Amino acid sequence: MDFQSDNTSGVAPQVMEAILNANHESAPSYGQDAVTQAAKQKFNQLFEREVDVFFTATGTAANGLALATLCPPYGVIFAHEEAHIITDEANAIEGFTAGAKIVPLSGKQGKIDPEGLDQRVQAWKNHRPHAPLPAVLSVTQVTEAGTVYTIDEIKILSQIAKTHGLYVHMDGARFANALVSLGETPAAMTWKAGIDVLSFGGTKNGALAAEAVVFFNRDVSKNADYMHKRMGQLFSKMRFFSSQFLALLQEDLWLRHASSANQIATQAAEVLQRCIGVKLLYPVEANEIFVRMSERLSSHLRAHGIAFYDWGLPGENHYRFVTSFNTHSLAIESLKIACKANLETSQSV
Amino acid sequence: MDFQSDNTSGVAPQVMEAILNANHESAPSYGQDAVTQAAKQKFNQLFEREVDVFFTATGTAANGLALATLCPPYGVIFAHEEAHIITDEANAIEGFTAGAKIVPLSGKQGKIDPEGLDQRVQAWKNHRPHAPLPAVLSVTQVTEAGTVYTIDEIKILSQIAKTHGLYVHMDGARFANALVSLGETPAAMTWKAGIDVLSFGGTKNGALAAEAVVFFNRDVSKNADYMHKRMGQLFSKMRFFSSQFLALLQEDLWLRHASSANQIATQAAEVLQRCIGVKLLYPVEANEIFVRMSERLSSHLRAHGIAFYDWGLPGENHYRFVTSFNTHSLAIESLKIACKANLETSQSV
Amino acid sequence: MDFQSDNTSGVAPQVMEAILNANHESAPSYGQDAVTQAAKQKFNQLFEREVDVFFTATGTAANGLALATLCPPYGVIFAHEEAHIITDEANAIEGFTAGAKIVPLSGKQGKIDPEGLDQRVQAWKNHRPHAPLPAVLSVTQVTEAGTVYTIDEIKILSQIAKTHGLYVHMDGARFANALVSLGETPAAMTWKAGIDVLSFGGTKNGALAAEAVVFFNRDVSKNADYMHKRMGQLFSKMRFFSSQFLALLQEDLWLRHASSANQIATQAAEVLQRCIGVKLLYPVEANEIFVRMSERLSSHLRAHGIAFYDWGLPGENHYRFVTSFNTHSLAIESLKIACKANLETSQSV
Amino acid sequence: MDFQSDNTSGVAPQVMEAILNANHESAPSYGQDAVTQAAKQKFNQLFEREVDVFFTATGTAANGLALATLCPPYGVIFAHEEAHIITDEANAIEGFTAGAKIVPLSGKQGKIDPEGLDQRVQAWKNHRPHAPLPAVLSVTQVTEAGTVYTIDEIKILSQIAKTHGLYVHMDGARFANALVSLGETPAAMTWKAGIDVLSFGGTKNGALAAEAVVFFNRDVSKNADYMHKRMGQLFSKMRFFSSQFLALLQEDLWLRHASSANQIATQAAEVLQRCIGVKLLYPVEANEIFVRMSERLSSHLRAHGIAFYDWGLPGENHYRFVTSFNTHSLAIESLKIACKANLETSQSV
Repeated sequence: MDFQSDNTSGVAPQVMEAILNANHESAPSYGQDAVTQAAKQKFNQLFEREVDVFFTATGTAANGLALATLCPPYGVIFAHEEAHIITDEANAIEGFTAGAKIVPLSGKQGKIDPEGLDQRVQAWKNHRPHAPLPAVLSVTQVTEAGTVYTIDEIKILSQIAKTHGLYVHMDGARFANALVSLGETPAAMTWKAGIDVLSFGGTKNGALAAEAVVFFNRDVSKNADYMHKRMGQLFSKMRFFSSQFLALLQEDLWLRHASSANQIATQAAEVLQRCIGVKLLYPVEANEIFVRMSERLSSHLRAHGIAFYDWGLPGENHYRFVTSFNTHSLAIESLKIACKANLETSQSV
Repeated sequence: MDFQSDNTSGVAPQVMEAILNANHESAPSYGQDAVTQAAKQKFNQLFEREVDVFFTATGTAANGLALATLCPPYGVIFAHEEAHIITDEANAIEGFTAGAKIVPLSGKQGKIDPEGLDQRVQAWKNHRPHAPLPAVLSVTQVTEAGTVYTIDEIKILSQIAKTHGLYVHMDGARFANALVSLGETPAAMTWKAGIDVLSFGGTKNGALAAEAVVFFNRDVSKNADYMHKRMGQLFSKMRFFSSQFLALLQEDLWLRHASSANQIATQAAEVLQRCIGVKLLYPVEANEIFVRMSERLSSHLRAHGIAFYDWGLPGENHYRFVTSFNTHSLAIESLKIACKANLETSQSV
Repeated sequence: MDFQSDNTSGVAPQVMEAILNANHESAPSYGQDAVTQAAKQKFNQLFEREVDVFFTATGTAANGLALATLCPPYGVIFAHEEAHIITDEANAIEGFTAGAKIVPLSGKQGKIDPEGLDQRVQAWKNHRPHAPLPAVLSVTQVTEAGTVYTIDEIKILSQIAKTHGLYVHMDGARFANALVSLGETPAAMTWKAGIDVLSFGGTKNGALAAEAVVFFNRDVSKNADYMHKRMGQLFSKMRFFSSQFLALLQEDLWLRHASSANQIATQAAEVLQRCIGVKLLYPVEANEIFVRMSERLSSHLRAHGIAFYDWGLPGENHYRFVTSFNTHSLAIESLKIACKANLETSQSV
Repeated sequence: MDFQSDNTSGVAPQVMEAILNANHESAPSYGQDAVTQAAKQKFNQLFEREVDVFFTATGTAANGLALATLCPPYGVIFAHEEAHIITDEANAIEGFTAGAKIVPLSGKQGKIDPEGLDQRVQAWKNHRPHAPLPAVLSVTQVTEAGTVYTIDEIKILSQIAKTHGLYVHMDGARFANALVSLGETPAAMTWKAGIDVLSFGGTKNGALAAEAVVFFNRDVSKNADYMHKRMGQLFSKMRFFSSQFLALLQEDLWLRHASSANQIATQAAEVLQRCIGVKLLYPVEANEIFVRMSERLSSHLRAHGIAFYDWGLPGENHYRFVTSFNTHSLAIESLKIACKANLETSQSV
């Protein structure tokens, strides 16, 4: 049973079908086609306002386009110290912004501490032009700890950011999982809470490779088409990317995917918690479970066919389990069996 | 009938099938999967040696990765003045190299003039460190004029480049079309002729979105994985990109695609040449036809359902026709009919 | 006698004295000192309006700051093909702009051809977002051919630029020499003629190392202090740079320097023209003389102690003579003697 | 009495004299002159080996050249969280490296904790290519806390760095102050302790504006001349920069400057410590003193003509006192008087 990542899963059948359906005759290239236009319209409806949308093939590219548009080379982006843009994008953000700095902020359970944000921004502002310009706050929703910011928590952070003149970016690689976790609308969790630009993840939600950069602030996106092109993300056969989003947004497929993943994660967390020697590191609010357990137990589970990632620093014995849109409820049974086997082994020892 | 571009075509059925077939169960992400490993092996066989291969979703990204790996920020890339990397990539190359300069070279029929290359490289070398370092020669095969360099022509250029210490890159967005035009092997047209890195185009050849950067010089690619990642081109579900190449390389599908496109282009060129008032600008050696004709005639053809691009500067009355892997021979009939109708209209005038 | 360059000269005594005078007690660092404030005021008076001024130690840095402020990474800068920013700055502009492209324009006598400018800008504009955004026109005054644009010529170019939405930059490494050549005011030759930002050269005019970036358009310079700092040009002991400009601008020293250099150049050009076998390549309008002569003659002159630079491509036999603020009229006598000796040698042969 | 910074001081008379002396006749530009050659030789002697030296006008530029040469865009530079390259250079390093990341490390008294370094480097290495490549360790000597690494401390850090394949850079803005503090040779404190490249500060040591980037590893500096030029640091009248170093290195002037500054700092620290309510934050090992004191006391001192900087975060009541090469011993008397006056005021209260 694979709990490694939501990107080891394949493509949802409805998405694959949409790709196949887009393959009729020739169509204008570079996004001038009807499928892409329809997908863009869909985003307007979804967010209850006009937005500018650009599709990319990876989350790194989506974050890169969003942040390169928001942050000048002499700017500072504030993000949680565990943020993907800091630890997992091989300096893509520093590159696409032509030299911006990402300042790591601390905070419990993967969430930025508001007071810390305020202090740090102020400290950088006090030393112009030696210190670079505080320019952007980037929040990750679902956080890197698998927790979910409440709407109020987002509003508090974005309010502090706005007070200091910063733009606010949301890295929503698992946007859908957060949304169903909160039971909120896309508008409520983004622009109504102060978000200027969103990286909207499709790939982890069942797409083949499709992320969307959604600009609520359209002054900012005025020349984003140039950035998108020069980043190598303007696909000639764009319809095969936009069709993925059309499929996901059709009949709430994206939300159903996320609900399913979240539910299985909750169940898996319950099973794991009952496993002797497993400690949950954070509340499970979306589709990720972070635990500490002994090496012996982790080996035992793996020997029983449960696949998951090592996490954190060597020696910490942290592990991550992730559920996906297509994680079957049988996975829970497998996990129960593996845990039970462990219990028996332990007792017999 | 669509002669607009080889990227307005859709995806070849075999490619689409391969994508579907890759969608079984979960698989390791970021290229550690079996499909990707198989595709990489295929490239080794194809080029008769070990190569390093990186997949990208656009040609701009492929050229960016190749040239960012070859050229330092203080380097000069020499290319034909019509090269895609100069005119059509929104400064992607200047960006990914962190500031390299592309020096435009002239030359007839889209081909770089060897003597001019030698002189220009020498001139830049004479003025260190005020003038940047001559670092790379980039040749486009098929050229932007639809012509094809012979193996000897490539060798002469790469020999001059090597003499001056330059790397040689080939922009092979239409690599297959050039190959079948010459009737040569992939090895003969690349590393045996002095090419260090190749941008190998799949998208215009029937893929959904798949380009490959092929490094023959593996010293150069030592850290290319980092560049690939930070450019936002390391796809989490990589198998859906590598499978496209597997399909194209299976049973010479890619060469059959190119042969078909080239043949239809030759036929279309013959029809156009017989059209009164049409002048071929360059020999038709692959799947592109460049013509000059009156605005009246171009309007007439378009009125008869023939779609093609304006080209060149305003007022030049240059036009481009491109055939694709799936351009049907019926397109030739349509073109004949449209031309004939023009003849009749002309005579009746 | 040294006609090599106006940067092989030393520092004018008045400038050196000003540097010495600035060395009293301690003073606030990074430009908060009184000398720097006074120098900035002086620029306001000089240009008859409020300007933003940043000092740099090299012309490359001045051009870099000006152009990085005006041009986005996805922008095009149009410049004459002989421009220093293309040939002599080791890709500094591509670097500081994070990847802008400089498109070389042709034009006689070092001057950009207006019609060519209009056509080229239009051509790039027609292909968004594949072609980068036309963003800046950079004119060099004195040109790289030693000629001087008239006010009307500047206005025509800047008018075309403005029509297309471009900013206009002037590379004035020899700003003073152009000004006295035209007999115009600084305001007339810059913002009144459509210039947004000026690189104002002090070093070739008798300073130790002092260039000024002068922003007439203060919206543009809003965050230029950050760029200036991160380029490594915010000097801690700024007063020793600003004092150089104070000295040059005192009692028109800078204009007297330029007048003297221009006059000697005119005289030298007359002597050279009478030298058998010397052909002037361009009209001598400032302090530079470009000639073609035989290798034999150039060797002869050098043997007589006349120092000057080779120019142009190998085999062209082009040479450059430059006069400086402190080129003595004796240099003319030396040149006469050397030329006369050549005449005698030639006749005796 | 000015304890604000060692860059609010002026220029040492010997340095000024050397600048004046360099102003004889014309000389080859861009560093081909005799003064520059002599200065470079001097560096060879000083470091007891062949080195490559490049002069810059600011410390930011020196660090930029050093680090851009050592670190690729996909690289990580490890530095103390208080390092100037993180907090005070407006993202210059991120810019000149084209996107490297500087990872902040903690450590007491401004010194990097060796164990923390080892762990952090290992953590980044474990996640290739998602995490960028650990590439450089940058140590600041004198540290930002005014303390001085011992030779052994440097060796331990550089040994860890080398084990992981990192280059080691020393930011020696106050190199001389550290050297006299330790009583070591330049060679012992740099390449013999594992340093690959040194930013050697002259400006804070009595120069007008002169820093030197010293490459002990000459493979690394092979193309540094291009970087130097494109950063806008290749001065045309180079002799006026190199002569500053010649003067400083003549008869150990630079060491005498540093000794004097360090001694006065020690005395000032003693006076301050005896001031009621002043707490030293770090041992005073060079020419900087960091204290905590009440706002009332700081106001009192300032009212008595003692100038110094606020430091740290708002509300921390941290202050910095710096002595310079020319801080007179009278400054100590002034400080004593101000402190004594404070004592009296306090008692009378």
